[in-house]
Amino acid sequence: MQLSCPMPKLDFDIITLGHGSGGTLTNRLLESGVFNLLANPLLNEKHDGAIFSLEGKLAFSTDSYVIHPIFFPGGNIGELAVNGTVNDLSMCGALPKYLSLSFIIEEGLPMTQFWEILCSIKAAADNAGVSIITGDTKVVEKGKGDQLFINTSGIGTLHPKADIKLSNIKAGDKIIVSHQIAAHGMAILSVREGLEFETQIVSDTTPLHDIVALLLDTFGNDIHLLRDPTRGGVASVLNEIAKDSRMGIVLQESSIPVDDQVQGACELLGLDPLYVANEGVFLAIVSPHIADALVTLLSTQSKTSLAACIGTIVPDHPGQVILHSKIGGKRVVNMLPGEQLPRIC
Amino acid sequence: MQLSCPMPKLDFDIITLGHGSGGTLTNRLLESGVFNLLANPLLNEKHDGAIFSLEGKLAFSTDSYVIHPIFFPGGNIGELAVNGTVNDLSMCGALPKYLSLSFIIEEGLPMTQFWEILCSIKAAADNAGVSIITGDTKVVEKGKGDQLFINTSGIGTLHPKADIKLSNIKAGDKIIVSHQIAAHGMAILSVREGLEFETQIVSDTTPLHDIVALLLDTFGNDIHLLRDPTRGGVASVLNEIAKDSRMGIVLQESSIPVDDQVQGACELLGLDPLYVANEGVFLAIVSPHIADALVTLLSTQSKTSLAACIGTIVPDHPGQVILHSKIGGKRVVNMLPGEQLPRIC
Repeated sequence: MQLSCPMPKLDFDIITLGHGSGGTLTNRLLESGVFNLLANPLLNEKHDGAIFSLEGKLAFSTDSYVIHPIFFPGGNIGELAVNGTVNDLSMCGALPKYLSLSFIIEEGLPMTQFWEILCSIKAAADNAGVSIITGDTKVVEKGKGDQLFINTSGIGTLHPKADIKLSNIKAGDKIIVSHQIAAHGMAILSVREGLEFETQIVSDTTPLHDIVALLLDTFGNDIHLLRDPTRGGVASVLNEIAKDSRMGIVLQESSIPVDDQVQGACELLGLDPLYVANEGVFLAIVSPHIADALVTLLSTQSKTSLAACIGTIVPDHPGQVILHSKIGGKRVVNMLPGEQLPRIC
Repeated sequence: MQLSCPMPKLDFDIITLGHGSGGTLTNRLLESGVFNLLANPLLNEKHDGAIFSLEGKLAFSTDSYVIHPIFFPGGNIGELAVNGTVNDLSMCGALPKYLSLSFIIEEGLPMTQFWEILCSIKAAADNAGVSIITGDTKVVEKGKGDQLFINTSGIGTLHPKADIKLSNIKAGDKIIVSHQIAAHGMAILSVREGLEFETQIVSDTTPLHDIVALLLDTFGNDIHLLRDPTRGGVASVLNEIAKDSRMGIVLQESSIPVDDQVQGACELLGLDPLYVANEGVFLAIVSPHIADALVTLLSTQSKTSLAACIGTIVPDHPGQVILHSKIGGKRVVNMLPGEQLPRIC
């Protein structure tokens, strides 16, 4: 494995139960380079928690990442765990500041893999402008975990113009998707199923805080809701929104951007891209008068160059999502009924 | 199983992969009662994160709980996960306010067990005065987890008189333990090994925030450091403190409070109580002139009625912990070398 940052010299090759003991081996694992790699003044205190000050309204979010496999086309569980929580904070309208980082390691994980993931965590945190200020390391016996699970929790400061909540949604609001959908889910599925395509489908894991800040700077409280359609895909998130807001949603299938190769892979496997998981993609529900300008602004940014308005909030059929298909029909789009692809994030 | 709060009527008996899909089944699991049970205005927003305001300095801490078995004498993984993070915040000198709650469930977990744990979480959160404001639920395949892992991360507000940090430790400072040690580790070991004692040894999991607040109100910055000796026990934490502060530590074995039954169980198994994990116990390193008064104050509280001064910070033998034994000898107490009892918290 090509490590993206040099691994310190260690007297062990794999993680053992003792590395989760809280004793000598835990200390050696952390002191061997983890603390140096992630160093910042708050983490360096090495207390049970970190102390800091932040002004104004704060956002707090948590996610445990159990993705399988832990290395996948376009990323690994480490950067996913950073970007995922950065994006959950972004969806609240917050600028991510601090993360916690908690590992549940299955004994036997090669140290080279753990180090590679740590390096990705460091790079992703730097890229998103967040500091990892507190953490935890547990080790479970072989067969009681699956290589590595990561929890990150995050704290961010609310953008001064953010007023993002479900109750702000109004009939007539437009639904915008920030980019092509379904890439993350199909990237994971392709490696799990051993599928080969002409070019590899890669996960779209990426932090979205900068783009969300740009949108809030420009459009403020005309942005009513932001959500990232990860597990369950666009269909499940829109169903939740329709149900909780007691409004209806109309989607235009022809407007929904899907990469040709992803679309082809979905067809091959009989999957609807609307149910496939995304990572670096978000949905915005916005006042109708800014919808075009917002899509235009998104299209100037590389991560969101294929943004599109895909639907409208309507007062009819509350709780339901109706798709107008490419061939002129209409159908109800339900929430994901079962489990399409377990452990996608 | 006797549930401590009534379980809602459900159309499923066990947790399946679909409950982690982000789709219909996840929604049903959460809406079936989880949201009602834990309800508070911030959680009720059901966004990707929660928004709040807190004044002043904040503390942030995280822990993943992988204890085995998940039900044990004196508690279960749910209340442990709340109390553990409440106590990590308390050790920073903070009043715990908000928790996140993230589950990694192995498919097949009976819903009655999950509900009992949720009820314990709710009771422990109420008891500690914290609100659970954001969360996550993942499900992994049978054999890829072990019933249930829980991550809690917490945010608290720093006590105005708290100034708790390693660099405040001075030669001459006294080391106080809040109560009898080693009960949690021996409670878990007794059920794992099927040991029977005359009366059952029970875990001492309990929140310590109220007692810490009382100490800070009374003694302020004469309290230099607080730590809870969980994994690795008192010996490992004191070794970390000695190493990181570059000071020596002298312990008086005869002063260290251990319950007779716990002591007997340790002897039976050849274990040193200094290495056995604790939950509702903390160490305080304090100015010598307040040590007696602090022990007296602790002894008025039921959770800390057997508090004792067990040692002193010294300028000699920096980085080392020396124990003066009951029979007059001296020995070096090292950090826990291997893994005495995996998955103790």
